[in-house]
Amino acid sequence: MEKKEISKSVLKRLPGYLAYLKTLPEGSATYISATALANALGMGEVQVRKDLAMVSDGGRPKIGYLRESLMEDISQFLGYDNTTDAILVGAGKLGQALLGYSGFADYGLNILAAFDINPTIDKTEDGKPILPMEKLESFCKTNKILMGIITVPAQYAQQVCDRLIACGIKAVWTFAPVHLDVPDNILVQSENMANSLALLSMHLRAHMKDKK
Amino acid sequence: MEKKEISKSVLKRLPGYLAYLKTLPEGSATYISATALANALGMGEVQVRKDLAMVSDGGRPKIGYLRESLMEDISQFLGYDNTTDAILVGAGKLGQALLGYSGFADYGLNILAAFDINPTIDKTEDGKPILPMEKLESFCKTNKILMGIITVPAQYAQQVCDRLIACGIKAVWTFAPVHLDVPDNILVQSENMANSLALLSMHLRAHMKDKK
Repeated sequence: MEKKEISKSVLKRLPGYLAYLKTLPEGSATYISATALANALGMGEVQVRKDLAMVSDGGRPKIGYLRESLMEDISQFLGYDNTTDAILVGAGKLGQALLGYSGFADYGLNILAAFDINPTIDKTEDGKPILPMEKLESFCKTNKILMGIITVPAQYAQQVCDRLIACGIKAVWTFAPVHLDVPDNILVQSENMANSLALLSMHLRAHMKDKK
Repeated sequence: MEKKEISKSVLKRLPGYLAYLKTLPEGSATYISATALANALGMGEVQVRKDLAMVSDGGRPKIGYLRESLMEDISQFLGYDNTTDAILVGAGKLGQALLGYSGFADYGLNILAAFDINPTIDKTEDGKPILPMEKLESFCKTNKILMGIITVPAQYAQQVCDRLIACGIKAVWTFAPVHLDVPDNILVQSENMANSLALLSMHLRAHMKDKK
């Protein structure tokens, strides 16, 4: 089907539908309706119906979607079928963890190499290279890299980001807890674990206070 | 100072201020104003001023905050000074990565142990135990654990979450890409990497289309 323009909020809900559909056991019903999906996920039926209509034209009135096809349509829509090559900067503990995390393959992400100002090892257990920063530009050019992952300490994140953009990178996934300034055509997606931990810790503190 | 009620959005901005303040070199000015901080982070001055006033009463008109004290006030407010003990369920690649990530100590998080349905190793390189699920209840009770981290596959996340809550856990940090149903007094903070990757991949696809 022709791809429609899609909002960020729809895009954020799609992985949830896919994850739920994948959890259904082999022997479950061949068809699933937007209503059933909405009920299972505690979401509004109208919203789920609209979201699914954006990515799949396989919905049949009163029957729903063929489950397998719907999963394929969502995967394809999310780009999980196309592999994106990425590089990572900052091969500390977090960087090495992400580099070694095989689960990203399910989402079409392939981290080719890591770069570090001072690599302590030259490759990971899985054989992925950890290269000195001097090789960043040539590696990105040779491999036509469009996505960069930033796992350096906060104070170096902006300069690394600028350098990645100069290398031709268009999408930045950052784990550093700082705001990054980028031109309009670059997307920065920030994974701010510090924020999450602050919220969790505040909740626990309120809980302890209530108990007193 | 007396703690005021604080909104989630303020709480989400505080780690960013702290991260920025930490990036300032040793020799920088002793005082920093809300205006300077707002300019450096590309944020509104009024907002920064209000946020800082929530967590510190050290601000002086026309001078600003003593930098060191402001950092302490934010850290204390965010609970980074108090260590929270947590356990993790799902000792796969991601779980082991989080378990081995020493950076969490900076945020007051201490993961004591991981649990798995079928542990392949009995401890990590750093000596943190990986225990069978049968020991979850007794471990949580003995160690009075209030925070649980979920890194199991999506289809097991809800049942693990239910079990954690039955163990007395009040705050859940989940990396599984599914919605979790919990009672009102439990906070779930979701780290949805699948969403981030979907947004990044969509942006790259739009970029490739523009180039054609």
